[in-house]
Amino acid sequence: MDANPILAEVVRGNWVENRHRGAFIVVDAEGAVIASGGDVERPVFPRSAIKSMQALAIFDRHALDRFHHSAEELALACASHHGEDEHVSGVAQFLDRMGLSVADLECGAHMPTNGKAREALRAVGADPSALHNNCSGKHSGMLSVALAMGVPTAGYVTREHDVQKAVRAAVEYVIGEDLTEDRCGTDGCSIPTWAAPLRTWALGFARMATGRGLDAGHAAGAQKLFDAATSHPHLVAGTGHLDTLVMEAFKGRVMQKGGAEGVQCGAIRDKGWGYALKCDDGNMAASHAMVAALLTKYADPDDAQKAVLEQFARQATKNVRGAVVGELRAVGV
Amino acid sequence: MDANPILAEVVRGNWVENRHRGAFIVVDAEGAVIASGGDVERPVFPRSAIKSMQALAIFDRHALDRFHHSAEELALACASHHGEDEHVSGVAQFLDRMGLSVADLECGAHMPTNGKAREALRAVGADPSALHNNCSGKHSGMLSVALAMGVPTAGYVTREHDVQKAVRAAVEYVIGEDLTEDRCGTDGCSIPTWAAPLRTWALGFARMATGRGLDAGHAAGAQKLFDAATSHPHLVAGTGHLDTLVMEAFKGRVMQKGGAEGVQCGAIRDKGWGYALKCDDGNMAASHAMVAALLTKYADPDDAQKAVLEQFARQATKNVRGAVVGELRAVGV
Repeated sequence: MDANPILAEVVRGNWVENRHRGAFIVVDAEGAVIASGGDVERPVFPRSAIKSMQALAIFDRHALDRFHHSAEELALACASHHGEDEHVSGVAQFLDRMGLSVADLECGAHMPTNGKAREALRAVGADPSALHNNCSGKHSGMLSVALAMGVPTAGYVTREHDVQKAVRAAVEYVIGEDLTEDRCGTDGCSIPTWAAPLRTWALGFARMATGRGLDAGHAAGAQKLFDAATSHPHLVAGTGHLDTLVMEAFKGRVMQKGGAEGVQCGAIRDKGWGYALKCDDGNMAASHAMVAALLTKYADPDDAQKAVLEQFARQATKNVRGAVVGELRAVGV
Repeated sequence: MDANPILAEVVRGNWVENRHRGAFIVVDAEGAVIASGGDVERPVFPRSAIKSMQALAIFDRHALDRFHHSAEELALACASHHGEDEHVSGVAQFLDRMGLSVADLECGAHMPTNGKAREALRAVGADPSALHNNCSGKHSGMLSVALAMGVPTAGYVTREHDVQKAVRAAVEYVIGEDLTEDRCGTDGCSIPTWAAPLRTWALGFARMATGRGLDAGHAAGAQKLFDAATSHPHLVAGTGHLDTLVMEAFKGRVMQKGGAEGVQCGAIRDKGWGYALKCDDGNMAASHAMVAALLTKYADPDDAQKAVLEQFARQATKNVRGAVVGELRAVGV
C-alpha cells in the first residue's frame, strides 16, 4: 500500500516534530474530481461525519410525515453536539414529543464534550446521562424512524434492526455503492459504521448538496437536512468547534461535519461540490487543519471566513506556562 | 522523504481504521545495529525520554558530591511522574533538602497525570502547583546542578543558562554528536529540547547501560541513574503506566522511558543494547504498542513479562457503553 501524502505537520521550534498523512477529495455530483490527494479509493469508516446522510432514513421511512421534525430537531439528528444546555434540553424535548425519554436511548452516557458543561455537572456531583452523549440527537432521529416504521424501539442500534437497515439503505442510495459486511464495525455510540471509499463519501455529499442523482424525495430531504444544519450550527457541534464556526461563517454555503478518528466531510453547496478527507492516524486536530486548508483553497472564502479557517489551518502549540513553542499546520492540500 | 513503515494500526470491527508509522532501532554500545525499521537518521526531539541522559549533568557538575542525592531523588530526576502523593512529597522534600521550594521551579503547573490525584485536588478545590508537573523531579535535579555550579537558579530553564549548557554537554558527550541550533525547540516544561537522529538516542542508551564508550565518571553516573530508575519504577512514571509496569516486571533488566509525542527510549541492560523509537504522528498509545512489541521481540521476556507487554502491544478499543469494538495493535516491529 502506497503511503498517503503528508497533509499536516507539527513544528516545534525550528524542526518538524510530527507528520500526519491523509487523503482528500473534492468532487461534483457527477463524480468529476475537482481535486484529490492520496488514495481516495481506500475504504474508510466515516463515523459521525455522515450523520446527515444517515438522517435521510427519517424521510425514507416517513418519520417526518408523522412527527414533523423541527429544523432544530433535524440539526440535532445531524449533530455531534457538545452536551451544552441547548443540546441536552433540545434532545429531551425531541424525545418527549415522541412519547419517549432518555431511557429509550441506547447510545450510552459520556461526559459532555464542552468543558463548561462538564464543570457544571461536576459542580453538582451529577453523572452524565445519555442525553449528554454527542450522538443523542442522531439517536432520537433513529427512534423517530422506529416509531414511524411501527417496529419496537428496543435494540434499534443493532445491525439487524429495521432502523439500521433503513439507515444503511439510505446511505447506500446516496453514495451509489453497497456497504458490505467485510468492512463493518461498531461506532462509539453502538450503531454500525461501514467503511467505503473516501471518494464515495464526497460524492454522496455533492449529491445531497445538489439533489442531482437523487430522486425528488431524497433531494428534498437532503436539502431540508443541510438547511437545518447550516442554519443551526451551534446545535450541530458546540461552542468554539470547527463545524459550528465554519458553518456560521459561511452562512449556508458550506455544510461541514467531522467524524471521529480524523474524518471530515461536507459540501460547498453553491458550487455543488462534496468533499471528504481522512487523517490516516486519526488525529482530530490534524484533520481540522486539513479541512481548513481544503476550504480555504476550494470554498472561495471571504476575509472573515478566511480568518475562521486560519485558526484551524495553523494551531499554536503552547507549553505548560502558556508560551507558544510551535504549531500544527496544514501542508499539501 | 520516504515514508516510514506502519508500526501500529487500529482495527474497528473487521477493518483497519487508523495507521501509525514510525521508525525504531536497537543498537549495541559500539553502534552495531541489532534491528531497525524506517529512517533512523532523521533527527527527532527525544523530549522526556532522555531525562536520565540529561540527569548526567548532576554527576558532571559535582552536584552529587554536594547533595548526595538519594536513589529516590535520582529516580525523580529521571521521571515523568504522575503527580501522585509519593511524587509530590518526594519532590517537595528534594527541594527542601537543598534549601529551595516550589517557588524555584520554572516548569509551570499542570493537573496531575494520575486520575485519582486529579480528583483529589478537585475534591478540595485546589489548583495544581509546579510540584504536580510531571517534570518537577527533573527540574529539582537541574536546580541541584545550578547550586553545585554556584550560579543563580533563576532562569535555569533557558538555553543560555549554565545549567542547560551543562545538560546539553552531558547529552552530547553520551550520544557522541553535537546538538545544533538549527534543530532546537522548547519542551513542555520550558527547557530546550534538541533533535538528533533516532540512532544516536539508542546509542546513548546502550552506552549508559554498559559504560562502554564513556569515561569512568559518566559510566558510574549512568549506572547509578539506571539503578535508581529501575529500582523505583513507580517514581519514574506512576500507577498503571507502561514505564512503571515494564521496569517492575523486568526487575532491573530494562530501563524504559517514554517522551511526549510518541518517543520511547531505553536499554535492555543485560544485553547491553539501547533502543529508540518515534511514532511519526506523535500518538502515545501507538508508541506504547510499538515499544511493547520491540521489547517482546528483543528483551527475551519470560511469561510474566510477556503478559505485561501484551497489555500494550494490543490495546482494546471500547465504545461508550464499554463494549470492545476494536483494538490498537503493533505490527511490523
